[in-house]
Amino acid sequence: MENPSSSNIEEVQQECYDEWMSLQAKRMTDLKRALANGEKNDGALRELIQSVIEDFKDYARKRSEHSRRYSSNYFAPTWNTCLENALLWMGGCRPSSFIRLVYAMCGSQTELRLTNFFRDNIGGLSMALGETPGRVDGAGESMSDLTAEQLFKINELHMKTVQEENMLTKQSATLQEDTADMPIAVAAFHKERIGEADVEVERALDKYEDEMARMLAEADKLRLTTLTKIVEILTAVQAADFLLAGKKLHLSMHEWGRERERRLLEACGDDSGGEFSGG
Amino acid sequence: MENPSSSNIEEVQQECYDEWMSLQAKRMTDLKRALANGEKNDGALRELIQSVIEDFKDYARKRSEHSRRYSSNYFAPTWNTCLENALLWMGGCRPSSFIRLVYAMCGSQTELRLTNFFRDNIGGLSMALGETPGRVDGAGESMSDLTAEQLFKINELHMKTVQEENMLTKQSATLQEDTADMPIAVAAFHKERIGEADVEVERALDKYEDEMARMLAEADKLRLTTLTKIVEILTAVQAADFLLAGKKLHLSMHEWGRERERRLLEACGDDSGGEFSGG
Repeated sequence: MENPSSSNIEEVQQECYDEWMSLQAKRMTDLKRALANGEKNDGALRELIQSVIEDFKDYARKRSEHSRRYSSNYFAPTWNTCLENALLWMGGCRPSSFIRLVYAMCGSQTELRLTNFFRDNIGGLSMALGETPGRVDGAGESMSDLTAEQLFKINELHMKTVQEENMLTKQSATLQEDTADMPIAVAAFHKERIGEADVEVERALDKYEDEMARMLAEADKLRLTTLTKIVEILTAVQAADFLLAGKKLHLSMHEWGRERERRLLEACGDDSGGEFSGG
Repeated sequence: MENPSSSNIEEVQQECYDEWMSLQAKRMTDLKRALANGEKNDGALRELIQSVIEDFKDYARKRSEHSRRYSSNYFAPTWNTCLENALLWMGGCRPSSFIRLVYAMCGSQTELRLTNFFRDNIGGLSMALGETPGRVDGAGESMSDLTAEQLFKINELHMKTVQEENMLTKQSATLQEDTADMPIAVAAFHKERIGEADVEVERALDKYEDEMARMLAEADKLRLTTLTKIVEILTAVQAADFLLAGKKLHLSMHEWGRERERRLLEACGDDSGGEFSGG
């Protein structure tokens, strides 16, 4: 049912991605609503957070199923904009970028709080003392309440995540280099006709795609672990704000990327050095 | 003339790539012919080798011109097969894979020479003693003549290249992470509507693409330097054999990738775990 035999693998992969993007948009609304309601029931909020994490787990499981022997597609998917593909690391975002997002949210909210404090004495003072204003105006505000202990843990996680990211990057570099070795390079050299079929080459490329599928699964595991650990370090409201920020960033990048592609198609060749955003 | 205003940037970039691929096919024929003729005139062979290097320099220069502010396209080009895109490092092949190719050619040729030696006493012996057979049968054979000194230099170059590759990889990781920071992530969070235009975001994304264009140019420079140094270490015949192997590998990968894509489109969703090459 999930893999109708009338669909080819690329269609199945694309469907899986489309479902994932719709689900993200839905979860964005769920998180927004829960936060706007000033959801004080930590239990209910934690449940929603858990569902969001489970979504990702589920998506990673499906990708893993669809990627065996056909994994190349995931390393620069046709359904992504070229901006997104230029930002891709192992078929998705860098796990360390989740942590950068925590810092960005924390920094911007702290800045905002200080600005408000100076601008508006009384209101600013009450905010600085931790009285939560309406969520609609103070969206993401919880992130300025990160304690020193939380920041310490996030920093520890950052260092560990970067280390594991580097390890995977190195493994993938080795796999990439291997394709310039025997048997592929040598077979390519000795063929009279370019692209002539070769069983040994096919086997080597199958093996390469299998290995890359394994790397994709490893990377997804690291993304999932990082996400889970961040959410554990944060309070329920902070975790919801953080996940909401992540979804909004992902969905926005897709749209901004599309808009830039549209402009790329309109831009004339001799504009290549020019400005188009007036920036 | 080179950038007709009727073409959009993507078309200009694609044309530039198509020209590059045609030129590679032409150079492949040039190199083959020179080697098959048993070109003993080192000067003429060196001249051809120099032209091949100049081709790459020229291509890199054109890419650099076309990539400013529109560089994303080069990090997972639409004109590549997904297999090629999965193998991409900074818009091209890993410079270290050039060196792996030297080792692969050297290893396979030495193996071949030994096999021939044992299989066919007299003929094998004469080959082992360095008598060059007709180039058509002994294509690439020069690579088994790499001296200890050459291998030492190649090894030194390998280590240096990997170091510089890692440095560029790290820089690109930082750039990627930056997009999950202010202002992009924070703007995405505070927008009511996903994808709403934002001057600050546009400016940040322009800056990101500019930086990535700079990285692409740096990576091309490293590819060029590595290529040039390898060719300097090798004899003229070895260099020609090596460049020929590189061109054949690149052109073959493109064709093999296409063939795999064709099969991917034919493969049914529920085949995703199956074998298709009988391997």
